[in-house]
Amino acid sequence: MRLSRSLIPTLKETPSEAQIASHRLMLRAGLVRQTSSGIYAWLPAGWKVLQNISRIVTEEQEAVGCQAMLMPTIQSADLWRQSGRYDAYGPEMLRITDRHQRELLYGPTNEEMLTDLVRQGVKSYRDLPQMLFHIQWKFRDEVRPRFGVMRGREFLMKDAYSFDLDYAGAVVSYRRQMLAYMRSFQRMGLKAIPMVADTGPIGGNLSHEFIVLAPTGESQVYFDAAFEKLDFGGDTYNAFSDADLERCYSDLTTHYAATDEKHDEAAWAKVADKREGRGIEVGHIFYFGTKYSDPMGLRVAAQGGGDLIPHMGSYGVGVSRLVGALIEAFHDEAGIIWPDSVAPFPAVIVNLKPGDAGCDELSEKAYAAFKGQALYDDREERAGAKFADADLMGHPWQIVIGPRGAKTGTVELKRRATGEKVEVSLEDALAKIAG
Amino acid sequence: MRLSRSLIPTLKETPSEAQIASHRLMLRAGLVRQTSSGIYAWLPAGWKVLQNISRIVTEEQEAVGCQAMLMPTIQSADLWRQSGRYDAYGPEMLRITDRHQRELLYGPTNEEMLTDLVRQGVKSYRDLPQMLFHIQWKFRDEVRPRFGVMRGREFLMKDAYSFDLDYAGAVVSYRRQMLAYMRSFQRMGLKAIPMVADTGPIGGNLSHEFIVLAPTGESQVYFDAAFEKLDFGGDTYNAFSDADLERCYSDLTTHYAATDEKHDEAAWAKVADKREGRGIEVGHIFYFGTKYSDPMGLRVAAQGGGDLIPHMGSYGVGVSRLVGALIEAFHDEAGIIWPDSVAPFPAVIVNLKPGDAGCDELSEKAYAAFKGQALYDDREERAGAKFADADLMGHPWQIVIGPRGAKTGTVELKRRATGEKVEVSLEDALAKIAG
Repeated sequence: MRLSRSLIPTLKETPSEAQIASHRLMLRAGLVRQTSSGIYAWLPAGWKVLQNISRIVTEEQEAVGCQAMLMPTIQSADLWRQSGRYDAYGPEMLRITDRHQRELLYGPTNEEMLTDLVRQGVKSYRDLPQMLFHIQWKFRDEVRPRFGVMRGREFLMKDAYSFDLDYAGAVVSYRRQMLAYMRSFQRMGLKAIPMVADTGPIGGNLSHEFIVLAPTGESQVYFDAAFEKLDFGGDTYNAFSDADLERCYSDLTTHYAATDEKHDEAAWAKVADKREGRGIEVGHIFYFGTKYSDPMGLRVAAQGGGDLIPHMGSYGVGVSRLVGALIEAFHDEAGIIWPDSVAPFPAVIVNLKPGDAGCDELSEKAYAAFKGQALYDDREERAGAKFADADLMGHPWQIVIGPRGAKTGTVELKRRATGEKVEVSLEDALAKIAG
Repeated sequence: MRLSRSLIPTLKETPSEAQIASHRLMLRAGLVRQTSSGIYAWLPAGWKVLQNISRIVTEEQEAVGCQAMLMPTIQSADLWRQSGRYDAYGPEMLRITDRHQRELLYGPTNEEMLTDLVRQGVKSYRDLPQMLFHIQWKFRDEVRPRFGVMRGREFLMKDAYSFDLDYAGAVVSYRRQMLAYMRSFQRMGLKAIPMVADTGPIGGNLSHEFIVLAPTGESQVYFDAAFEKLDFGGDTYNAFSDADLERCYSDLTTHYAATDEKHDEAAWAKVADKREGRGIEVGHIFYFGTKYSDPMGLRVAAQGGGDLIPHMGSYGVGVSRLVGALIEAFHDEAGIIWPDSVAPFPAVIVNLKPGDAGCDELSEKAYAAFKGQALYDDREERAGAKFADADLMGHPWQIVIGPRGAKTGTVELKRRATGEKVEVSLEDALAKIAG
């Protein structure tokens, strides 16, 4: 994209309403704008980040056999009465009345709706297990929205739901999701640790939350250094091997890890190689048995005759929250430092003198090489302002083109994460970026 | 996907509530399920179609320089008071009150919100033109929702907005969108015709609606056969050449075309080569000058000093409606006939005898060749039921594998659109599908 023709309104000043780094930087880098309390519009660069995260999450969900679908945002209150949650949910639920005075709500989660869909479509043990997910906008009417997209009211979530014949099957689904989570976060460049969690309003008796490490995170976390050695890439664990899933689960749950809420000093004392840090919750998974399937009447024909009640689990990732969490994990005083996998643009091309024939020609050549996927800073601005914006926006690579270098086809290539700069030919710069 | 592990609940019977072909077939093929009046869940196969359409629309929007973004579904009533539309909109607008008694609404369109964002982020003539779009769920509280996704309450729309320095610039943006629309519909296999339209509640003085031809369409349309010869693929028209845009506009607006509402018998009598048919509205574009920018106070610094009021247009495509329109255009008595570009799966692999070693082996080999993108009918069902479901779901290709053919690696390859069947080796079948 050409920056002069893009809606990426960077700000020099720090907005006064923003209390944490990610909120400040998302506003300053022109990723989002608040449109009402706790509700944000995703401007072009922010939307690209959100899509990159969604793509990684989708690929890793599908890689463990979870089917993509999409449920609607507006749900019927009657459905929530079937599970007993309509009255239990409290004022976070946005309740709506339509023109015919029917009671609706803006869904905060989808256990009831998917249980109903499976109840309609799945009749036999032969059709199970089923695991489905969607990436969907949800609404929770937070009493005091704050911290930008980290605690907004309208937010994007990946929520998956599993339906199994029995407890043993549900445990396999649970472990499969756990592996998908670890792979997703690793691909985003994040270090994530699952921690035993309370099951809260969703209910059930097996639950983990996923905490990603970030120096400015919301809670203090304590963990065994063994977590630093785990690797979820490639073929480390096969999602369709029960033995691999068990090994993965064991690797993730044997060592000590806790947030300050659940911290146990006695157990902590026994950890040989201790790590402490700050963390942000970005996911939460639950096994809850027949909590929804039983009262909602989900039954399938059992193999030997008769009916069985499927065992369920649900698995959430805060997709819009992850944008904030990534910035908390990756920033410095000058701005954001995007990991390559989620960056809105792989590189920015900084034309130091638009209007200079040599600069324009070499810049256009660089821009064409990225087939429109890079950001081209073609604005008539001071070099200092352009450098500051490039650092602020956090593109992994900066290709700086000035009149002197343009004469010989030379650019300055800067890696945002390290600050390292080299003077090279455009071709060498492109080769280095391509990896 | 393996059909035995997928939530694609096909129905043998025609649901009584469905009055039109697309509604019947979307339910019968397991693409969607209604969750409340006029609100649908998109099951895995339906969601794939919706994503394929969204991808085509996105690519063609970006190809004419339109930036992708995403605005929230919930808007503040105050914003709509600034344009005067809050009171004017009527009971189709879903009005909501939050826990602090603030008035919100579920957005039916986004002129106000984007005007506000541009007002915050764009200050100078140097930053214009700007053209942005999003593909977003919207809500219109139809008094009597019907025809499935063709007239639902929660629906997916692509809406784009342009901001130009003056009328001449706005006309260029308008023509660019028109070209993007014709390219999008052509890629979906649809024949679309723009027709002069009333500007309605959005206002303005230049407007076209896009009607796609379908034998079971909602309105009668009359058009010059010249439209049948137009081609928008490849380099026919360059979206960044004003001369090409003018030629494209002229090619699309010179010849007679009208729905029965606007039909003019006198003009029709002069058409040499007449065509009549049925059509469905799938898009509507508007130029409306300063209707929103003026009252909402959007001003940018003009080149010679002083301020100017940008000229705007908006451009809608009914993305979820297109799923219905495509089925109205492409079906027969047995079911849907998906065009390749939007089909949920390029092919179905029909294993006639699961459990037979030869059938299983050849079917798995075929399935592996599609890298998980094909549908594998591995269910224990009668052959007749599998053939009926394959025709119903409308996969472009059917690869039928039975015990006799499996011995020699032979499959029956059927093209859904023509009914043509050939017995070939699996390799030849795959080569033929690859094109």
